[in-house]
Amino acid sequence: MPELRKDPISRRWVIIATDRAARPTDFKHEAVEASDSDRCPFCEGREAQTPPEIFAIRAPGTAPNTPGWTVRVVSNKFPALRIEGSTERTKVGLFTRMDGVGAHEVIIETTDHHQHLALQPVEHVADVIRAYLQRYRDLRGDARFAYGLLFRNHGRTAGASLSHPHSQLIALPVVPQRVAIELEAAEHHLGLQGTCIFCRMLEDERKAGARIVLENEAFVALEPYASRFPFETWILPKVHEADFGALRSDQELPFAGILHETLHRLHVSLDNPPYNFVIHSLPYRSEAKPAYHWHVEVMPRLTQVAGFEWGTGFYINPVVPEEAARYLREAAPVAASVGPGDRRQAAR
Amino acid sequence: MPELRKDPISRRWVIIATDRAARPTDFKHEAVEASDSDRCPFCEGREAQTPPEIFAIRAPGTAPNTPGWTVRVVSNKFPALRIEGSTERTKVGLFTRMDGVGAHEVIIETTDHHQHLALQPVEHVADVIRAYLQRYRDLRGDARFAYGLLFRNHGRTAGASLSHPHSQLIALPVVPQRVAIELEAAEHHLGLQGTCIFCRMLEDERKAGARIVLENEAFVALEPYASRFPFETWILPKVHEADFGALRSDQELPFAGILHETLHRLHVSLDNPPYNFVIHSLPYRSEAKPAYHWHVEVMPRLTQVAGFEWGTGFYINPVVPEEAARYLREAAPVAASVGPGDRRQAAR
Repeated sequence: MPELRKDPISRRWVIIATDRAARPTDFKHEAVEASDSDRCPFCEGREAQTPPEIFAIRAPGTAPNTPGWTVRVVSNKFPALRIEGSTERTKVGLFTRMDGVGAHEVIIETTDHHQHLALQPVEHVADVIRAYLQRYRDLRGDARFAYGLLFRNHGRTAGASLSHPHSQLIALPVVPQRVAIELEAAEHHLGLQGTCIFCRMLEDERKAGARIVLENEAFVALEPYASRFPFETWILPKVHEADFGALRSDQELPFAGILHETLHRLHVSLDNPPYNFVIHSLPYRSEAKPAYHWHVEVMPRLTQVAGFEWGTGFYINPVVPEEAARYLREAAPVAASVGPGDRRQAAR
Repeated sequence: MPELRKDPISRRWVIIATDRAARPTDFKHEAVEASDSDRCPFCEGREAQTPPEIFAIRAPGTAPNTPGWTVRVVSNKFPALRIEGSTERTKVGLFTRMDGVGAHEVIIETTDHHQHLALQPVEHVADVIRAYLQRYRDLRGDARFAYGLLFRNHGRTAGASLSHPHSQLIALPVVPQRVAIELEAAEHHLGLQGTCIFCRMLEDERKAGARIVLENEAFVALEPYASRFPFETWILPKVHEADFGALRSDQELPFAGILHETLHRLHVSLDNPPYNFVIHSLPYRSEAKPAYHWHVEVMPRLTQVAGFEWGTGFYINPVVPEEAARYLREAAPVAASVGPGDRRQAAR
């Protein structure tokens, strides 16, 4: 019997179509393959082919826009939004418009064209997180920006137009609708119950256990109750914190660790699936700190999103979240599947 | 300069990234090709391979589940929802669940495996509309159903798993979030302004003209101001009507005409693109008749939806809606591009 489940935070209904349930290996998907490394502008030695460096983690003594970096941030060459412009809104009849003002940056995660996050040593993932944090915090300083969205597309199906491992950061002059809906539900819950809805969910989920994938000292990875996608996985800090930008330096490595472990288990279990992840954080100017709880949403792209989903905002998920969680819990952890030899090869 | 636009009905922001603007022919997309006609369960003569017929338009004297039909409706063999079950909601902690109760039907639009809607004679499209209406009205009779969603997926990229031309109807025990958001905005506008927000938009758009694609005696096709997708096109009745199920019999042919003409122009202009369309109508038990206005949303699938869109509910559209409208206005109409010879070939 299929089941309808409602996500308490987004207030979105999802159909869990258990009759269509499948083993993870039943999902055919695009093979995510790195291509075009001979002309890739993100590879080491081609620094002149990108817009100038905004930030980099690089070897002492090396100059910007030259080799010697490990993580490098540049503006998107084809930005969706531009840094110049005003945030004045104009209304003509029913319609509201404003300049497409914002920032659109690319975090080049590694010099190695083939080494995506799931295959990196965790220390390197921590450097990527440090670059995220530096840029996320810096863009908050521009008073025109209401929101900073960090995200990663892996594979062409997931929208990655260049295969060299990279993430993106878009700063927006408005708060996106999906975040606004989450925030509204969180504030409503806080008003009624006096607690953060995410903290409450974490408490319940850790007690129940069925949807937990893994935990470390500071973070939990779980399959949300009303998962929209097979193997959708959220990562949340255990202790209440609304703002990703407030991550303490002693939390960088635990966060890198759980992100890395989650991506690695998806990689191993689902044979390198295309995926997107996004970091949802409190809007830059919001005062809803007691209500909101930052988190990562990882969305493997194993199913087609068709007219029904577009028409309703309602998803059909053929995998029961509890089964996905069990499968990922039982997947080989990084430590077991990446031996010293593999790791050396991975680090090349 | 890119532009941010806000849709007054869904309250969704969209980035119109004009710098990326492109000719329609710049969009590379999957070639929509019919395949597997030798094993297709929807072809004439294979009626026994589908669940039993629920409704059909067929030649007098022919028996159900035999050849002789022109449009045929059956249950989906792999339904997302089941007809048995209760709509009782159970709450455990934060989470709400209910049985996945509903209906999931397939409208097989033609006996001809290759003849999709854009290529049909308009009289045949009107028969498809009659089948939509019969099923949409019939499912309203089940008091458990809150909403009926009619939709069509064209091409594999758009989620069509069988290429034989068909539409689907899913009846749901809850109102989908996207419709609920539209309805809320419409009721809010009615409360403040005393008018239907869609009627107001139609009035403004017809005065301005820039986003109008075409009109006939009863319907308008236009590119919405804050189009999420290149060549997104909405079809709306000119006279206020909340409920698709209230379509009068003298409006069936005009509706078939504008739907057909719209799909045909997209077909010709964009070289048979994958697309989805959905019909948004007033929820079955809603009393918001004065506020809501039924409409079709046609969404060509020419761009990848990536992490940014998933993470925010915010879309990046590289085509300015006014240019898309001009392009579709100037496209060859059905009458000009389908000569009698073509039409005969099309009807085979």
